[in-house]
Amino acid sequence: MASTDIVTRELKNPVDVAEYLFRRLHEIGIRSLHGVPGDYNLVALDYLSKAGLKWVGNCNELNAGYAADGYARVKGISALVTTFGVGELSALNAIAGAYSEFVPVIHIVGQPTTKSQKDGMLLHHTLGNGDFNVFNKMSEGVSCYVARLNNSQDAATLIDSAIRECWIRSRPVYITLPTDIVGAKVDGDRLKTPIDLSLPKNDPEKEDYVVNVVLKYLHSAKNPVIVVDACAIRHRVLEEVRDLVEKSGMPTFVTPMGKGAVNETHKNFGGVYAGNGSNPGVSDAVESSDLILSIGAIKSDFNTTGFTYRIGQLNTIDFHSTFVRVRYSEYPDINMKGVLRKVIQKMNPLSPAPAPALTNILPESEKTSNDQIITHKWLWPIVGQWLKEKDIVLTETGTANFGIWDTRFPAHVTAISQVLWGSIGYSMGACQGAALAAKEEGGRRTILFIGDGSMQLTVQELSTILRNKLNPIVFVICNEGYTIERYIHGWDAGYNDIQPWEFADIPKAFGGKENYQGYRIKTRDELKKLFADNDFNVSDKLRLVELYMPREDAPAGLKLTAEAAANRNK
Amino acid sequence: MASTDIVTRELKNPVDVAEYLFRRLHEIGIRSLHGVPGDYNLVALDYLSKAGLKWVGNCNELNAGYAADGYARVKGISALVTTFGVGELSALNAIAGAYSEFVPVIHIVGQPTTKSQKDGMLLHHTLGNGDFNVFNKMSEGVSCYVARLNNSQDAATLIDSAIRECWIRSRPVYITLPTDIVGAKVDGDRLKTPIDLSLPKNDPEKEDYVVNVVLKYLHSAKNPVIVVDACAIRHRVLEEVRDLVEKSGMPTFVTPMGKGAVNETHKNFGGVYAGNGSNPGVSDAVESSDLILSIGAIKSDFNTTGFTYRIGQLNTIDFHSTFVRVRYSEYPDINMKGVLRKVIQKMNPLSPAPAPALTNILPESEKTSNDQIITHKWLWPIVGQWLKEKDIVLTETGTANFGIWDTRFPAHVTAISQVLWGSIGYSMGACQGAALAAKEEGGRRTILFIGDGSMQLTVQELSTILRNKLNPIVFVICNEGYTIERYIHGWDAGYNDIQPWEFADIPKAFGGKENYQGYRIKTRDELKKLFADNDFNVSDKLRLVELYMPREDAPAGLKLTAEAAANRNK
Repeated sequence: MASTDIVTRELKNPVDVAEYLFRRLHEIGIRSLHGVPGDYNLVALDYLSKAGLKWVGNCNELNAGYAADGYARVKGISALVTTFGVGELSALNAIAGAYSEFVPVIHIVGQPTTKSQKDGMLLHHTLGNGDFNVFNKMSEGVSCYVARLNNSQDAATLIDSAIRECWIRSRPVYITLPTDIVGAKVDGDRLKTPIDLSLPKNDPEKEDYVVNVVLKYLHSAKNPVIVVDACAIRHRVLEEVRDLVEKSGMPTFVTPMGKGAVNETHKNFGGVYAGNGSNPGVSDAVESSDLILSIGAIKSDFNTTGFTYRIGQLNTIDFHSTFVRVRYSEYPDINMKGVLRKVIQKMNPLSPAPAPALTNILPESEKTSNDQIITHKWLWPIVGQWLKEKDIVLTETGTANFGIWDTRFPAHVTAISQVLWGSIGYSMGACQGAALAAKEEGGRRTILFIGDGSMQLTVQELSTILRNKLNPIVFVICNEGYTIERYIHGWDAGYNDIQPWEFADIPKAFGGKENYQGYRIKTRDELKKLFADNDFNVSDKLRLVELYMPREDAPAGLKLTAEAAANRNK
Repeated sequence: MASTDIVTRELKNPVDVAEYLFRRLHEIGIRSLHGVPGDYNLVALDYLSKAGLKWVGNCNELNAGYAADGYARVKGISALVTTFGVGELSALNAIAGAYSEFVPVIHIVGQPTTKSQKDGMLLHHTLGNGDFNVFNKMSEGVSCYVARLNNSQDAATLIDSAIRECWIRSRPVYITLPTDIVGAKVDGDRLKTPIDLSLPKNDPEKEDYVVNVVLKYLHSAKNPVIVVDACAIRHRVLEEVRDLVEKSGMPTFVTPMGKGAVNETHKNFGGVYAGNGSNPGVSDAVESSDLILSIGAIKSDFNTTGFTYRIGQLNTIDFHSTFVRVRYSEYPDINMKGVLRKVIQKMNPLSPAPAPALTNILPESEKTSNDQIITHKWLWPIVGQWLKEKDIVLTETGTANFGIWDTRFPAHVTAISQVLWGSIGYSMGACQGAALAAKEEGGRRTILFIGDGSMQLTVQELSTILRNKLNPIVFVICNEGYTIERYIHGWDAGYNDIQPWEFADIPKAFGGKENYQGYRIKTRDELKKLFADNDFNVSDKLRLVELYMPREDAPAGLKLTAEAAANRNK
């Protein structure tokens, strides 16, 4: 400790490591920390309020991880605090999901003292073998940077680097904070200089070269289109996308993971492209195009209706955060952001084809039906009529995140789902994080659609929502179990059934009295009435709606995707 | 596939890999599989009923892992089925706990086809980088054996080896089951020969040598004692321990992790040894002994009241599953089981000191008190008076698993808690698994004591209990949050508070109507009345008791251990 003391004496403005870390989190926009207390992180938590941060206090670490992911998708970045071993491992699935889907989450793990670790002490929360590195090795596989704060000398540098990497690469980072490092001193003057979160600039000559190649093909294309996917959101090129759509007039589509990336009320917007599962008219429009500007694509099975794209690489320009590919020519180490901006600046006026129209008008069959059963075909356009600008819409993996393909959003809607990682239960945790972010931003509604099976995995985050006085609207699709799995395998198998719950009673059991409104909706008329009800639409309370739908009903996109998955599993 | 076909034609009695695996599980005593369905394991689940196995259908994978751990602690071994990525990672904390505490759990992970993996397909539940090995590497660190079933040729051999290793080493193993391997053919005739689960025999000359060394010290000791710890249970030497206690007449103690290892009504039983936190008279008796036979010790912080043992290695013989240590002489590669058996056979009659008496009689102060507040000092002896032979008693990390030190068990009680790994929420899942095992064995009661904070992590397993028509008795200690953490740090900190729940209403919301009885107990008289109530004691329904105790009350052992932890965190 002598060397630390010497350093401390030399510091003009010493601050404790935990304070430094938390003030940095505040600086980048984080206002609430998700997580669960544990004895190796308690001392650190004392520093939260001093740094202007609020403690959420989730019910468990997996849910906290999901919540941090949801918070990050609204606020841009988030942080999660767990304790050594037990806590961090419980969160690992959520962190892997954030890694998979490019969500920047700072995972801070409270650890035993550096001395206890060096001595290999037989402490609780260990494997009993003296090895304190097993767990951080597990996290390495799903983190883009690891900062192990084992002394005061490099702690501040490691913290700054971790935060920068998290932001730039838009993926989780892992920070270890042993209890004896919490109060070690670092140079507080560093805090006067904000962390540099700017993207590394592209090499200008290379960038110009790529821009010219892109323009060459763009200007000679007859019916170019834009397809916007998840990484356009994650790598923050939505302004570039907006300007490109506006200036070019090109028909613009989103993939399922790209929902919310563009203004869906814009005249250029044509709907969801997902191969066989696309909105009506979309696959024709995209697949007959002679140039597809594909921005931030993640061509996973569930994002492409089971790999059913029919577009050739010869007609495609792929824009990514680390490379651009024009037809088969790859341009590595270049970020799409600068390229897109210059393409917008330099492009000639185009005469693009009109986009197919996506509306929330019900299909003719549904309009004339007297049927009161709430089906997916009926539900999702109706949801689209009900949504408002700036809503945050979460859809769980299953019928909901396929159904939402058929909803045209109002402007500025944020859509959250986990199409690639697909961990069921995710959206309940993410809803808590998103609703908290919405509250901090002021005035946005948070709306969740989740199935009754998925809800059972993470139901206790309804409690965290109540505890934090959040007011999301939660629709529980009551359809008797894992419908998406039935479509893949085991239509009548008991393993796809669930215990039937009284969902609307659960928030009451979780202590929600004055701050909760519950509903049971079984008919179309009831839902239309609910959507027209001001007490329902405007409320500072949690609202939970049991939404009864047939066990065997599913959106068309789900059916096609599940069929492809079942075939692939053979 | 050609080579597989050739092999198949050569098999006289081909069976599918999944059937082979599940019939092996049945052979070793497993009757129910814990887990959550997912599309990469659905096809395998179709084979369960054919092999005589029942599907539990947990609410999430962490809880399923905890449940499998609890089931294994009653039945000897268990199995858990999850799906690739999302499912297996959620279970990792539970698997790490089983690894830490030597519980044999077979973790079967349904995977995408071997071809999809080889091709690095961009499937859901992947990191999107084509790397299908990230997750199994994570599990390697907490598994004693990994069997990757990637072809039919070695699948049966790998399955048999995995099951044997799981049993012999009493730790989790990890088996991957790609969907295309589920129906691949293996030699069904192998099933006619049961898997060899016998321990490797010790080298006889070496064993005799060690036995003689042990006997030399034992016969010359003046006041030898026995201390029985967790690994005596996990490595299955309880019969040897019983015979040693009986034949030697030595005062016998258990550690907190050793609770349940010996018959606590036996005249030789002296109580819990845990250093400073020992039962009255115990630390004197143990620490003044000139020879401690320490059987299966895990000297972790929470098992020793913060490392407060005062016994010297010069007075100790340590018996373990892989070595014996006499004073400072180590004898590696020898299993205690054979050594103990021979020591019992060859030992001369001893004249040991009498053991201190542990009773469930209330301390004088509590007996005469008119106070109706339920305190730990009062509760745990009263619980001891109420328990019955063969009860299974689970105590959550916190006030409960320290409080139970003061309960003298009836004979043949199984105690379950997670003293080393200490993952809160564990015992709710483990309770489901234990209650199912108890049902399969017939006629045992399963009783859980869990805090209101811990319960929030895993509450949905109450639903799995209802779904499987299990009938444990669940006491929720309602004391307003994380009391164990308050004792370590943050006495009044908000992060140690929780959302107040109406616990007794939760099973109703989870669909428990006719098969649930709820209680709210706030006074000593109410609890005494409840314990005398036959409708409560004998029931085929889930019973949940809200047990109100003061926020600031804790067992003495917890206070001492927490103080040591707080000091070590500095």
